[in-house]
Amino acid sequence: LSRLRVAVDAMGGDLAPREVAAGVVAAALESPALEVLLVGDEALVRPLVEAEPGGRGALAEGRVALLHAPEAIGMDEHPVEALRRKRRSSIGLALDAVREGRAGAFWSAGSTGACVAAASLGLKRAAGVRRPAIACAIPTRRGVSVLLDAGANVAPKAVDLLHQAAMGAAYARVVLGAAEPTVGLLNVGAEEEKGTELVREAARLLAAAAPALRYRGFVEGHDLFRGTTDVVVTDGFTGNAVLKAAEGQAELHLERFRACLLAAQGGDEGRARAALGPLARDMDWAEHGGAPLLGVEGVVLIGHGRSDARAVRTGVLAARRAAEADLAGALAAAVAALPAVAA
Amino acid sequence: LSRLRVAVDAMGGDLAPREVAAGVVAAALESPALEVLLVGDEALVRPLVEAEPGGRGALAEGRVALLHAPEAIGMDEHPVEALRRKRRSSIGLALDAVREGRAGAFWSAGSTGACVAAASLGLKRAAGVRRPAIACAIPTRRGVSVLLDAGANVAPKAVDLLHQAAMGAAYARVVLGAAEPTVGLLNVGAEEEKGTELVREAARLLAAAAPALRYRGFVEGHDLFRGTTDVVVTDGFTGNAVLKAAEGQAELHLERFRACLLAAQGGDEGRARAALGPLARDMDWAEHGGAPLLGVEGVVLIGHGRSDARAVRTGVLAARRAAEADLAGALAAAVAALPAVAA
Repeated sequence: LSRLRVAVDAMGGDLAPREVAAGVVAAALESPALEVLLVGDEALVRPLVEAEPGGRGALAEGRVALLHAPEAIGMDEHPVEALRRKRRSSIGLALDAVREGRAGAFWSAGSTGACVAAASLGLKRAAGVRRPAIACAIPTRRGVSVLLDAGANVAPKAVDLLHQAAMGAAYARVVLGAAEPTVGLLNVGAEEEKGTELVREAARLLAAAAPALRYRGFVEGHDLFRGTTDVVVTDGFTGNAVLKAAEGQAELHLERFRACLLAAQGGDEGRARAALGPLARDMDWAEHGGAPLLGVEGVVLIGHGRSDARAVRTGVLAARRAAEADLAGALAAAVAALPAVAA
Repeated sequence: LSRLRVAVDAMGGDLAPREVAAGVVAAALESPALEVLLVGDEALVRPLVEAEPGGRGALAEGRVALLHAPEAIGMDEHPVEALRRKRRSSIGLALDAVREGRAGAFWSAGSTGACVAAASLGLKRAAGVRRPAIACAIPTRRGVSVLLDAGANVAPKAVDLLHQAAMGAAYARVVLGAAEPTVGLLNVGAEEEKGTELVREAARLLAAAAPALRYRGFVEGHDLFRGTTDVVVTDGFTGNAVLKAAEGQAELHLERFRACLLAAQGGDEGRARAALGPLARDMDWAEHGGAPLLGVEGVVLIGHGRSDARAVRTGVLAARRAAEADLAGALAAAVAALPAVAA
């Protein structure tokens, strides 16, 4: 059996390292094709792994291996400064393992900024890609769509949006199972003359990229959750605002649904919780495994800061699948198939 | 009794003119301080008003007056071209009434683009304001916040965001009842160096505008529905995307929660509907009366395209209240209180 190794940042996220350790052991036990390199403060992490059911066995069999990292980057630290100061952080050492081929994928629920900066600095750029982008899978009426960029590149050029389209479509096909992913460009209206200069120029590049891309034109904000296209491309400023606003709104809705259901069930908390269960999980953004940083060589998944053991398990398994499906190879092929654009 | 007159576009919106006529009559009957100038195809509109309970009386007493407009602008027409071709549209004639002082406010559920273009061309710019902006009131955990710009100005300068802050705060105070409205600037993170050039420059202008503005610094997407600040300022591209995405997500969530509640109530549709009632209304964006175009002389409210009679009534009453509270005067004073900025 050839196992795929995922390097996991044990120290990242609000519930680290406890929930990360628990999620990693659960993932290793669930998938025989998975090995985890768990990177963090070994004195903290080892007892947590050993305390999990099956944890000692997983360590003994090498299904979970520990790599000591003496430092960790906090959620509120300035990413680039922290990386410069902390040369042996859990994020940095886990990415080193990917760069050096000791792991096929990376997963962290730590600082998005630090993960993006460390991966951008530490891993090679994928061939032909000017700037990496964060892709976020969102639950829609028709299944799942991919929105990118979620914030890696707040002031892109039109050619970056073209690359995002190709990378997003490759991700949708290889990881999310969309057979022939369609692409839309986020705008404030459907008419040709709408929007900013950036959007109009990107629209021309996207239209000219057929048949490499299945570009369907402008989409608007409401198309996102309708699932009008499999991939929606936008700048990292807008994408970040849309995604964080939607997440905040989902939290508010969930709270209100809970109260409404509780009242309807005559105050029976257990029944209300059971009735809301699947919907609540679907609405919880931490449950969706993590957002990949596309455009670097290797699989880099960034989990939600609130990730609990369940979300960590989902994320680590998703990272393994993405590496196994050769997401990086599919990306490179998709970008190579684009017509050349003068930058 | 001195009555305030609101000019209403009878022909705008998916459910016009029937639901507009019904909502207008309901508003006039509810508020003795209101007169409506209902502008549209009189042959269509008069019978609809007369068919409403109290409609004939409202016409006879002049509580509802009809103004014939032989043309209407469709939702899908190009705004500026349509305005050029149709000189006597319901939107155009209703705004003429505001410009000429025959009405104190305007309300339409028609094409947002046509309303913005017609108001920008037809009404004077408010003193000191470079570009008008659409403000949208959104339901938050703490009550209501105002996000602007919702799409009138997709490529603003930093000084436009400064004006938006002052106008949004005036609107929050005068119409929404926020005693000392706070202002946040939408960004991708809280740290000073985050975001685009535009955002960093706007942050400097906003910080320098104390004490005229209660500026609280950067806010992120998730702060929006938390109600972290009373006013959130952003460019019209991002604002439009955020608001339309949130509206689409709210529709999806409501649909799913309805199904969940129905299952929990053993398939009893009546009980499920009753349990969901107030929450569903709160989550329905058409229920919130309309978004004002701030920065033109006069009160201009743009209702949701899906507005039914109830939403029209809410919107017309909101337009009356805004005019009575002298929203336009409060805006002008707020902008005049800002420090001068070289454009």
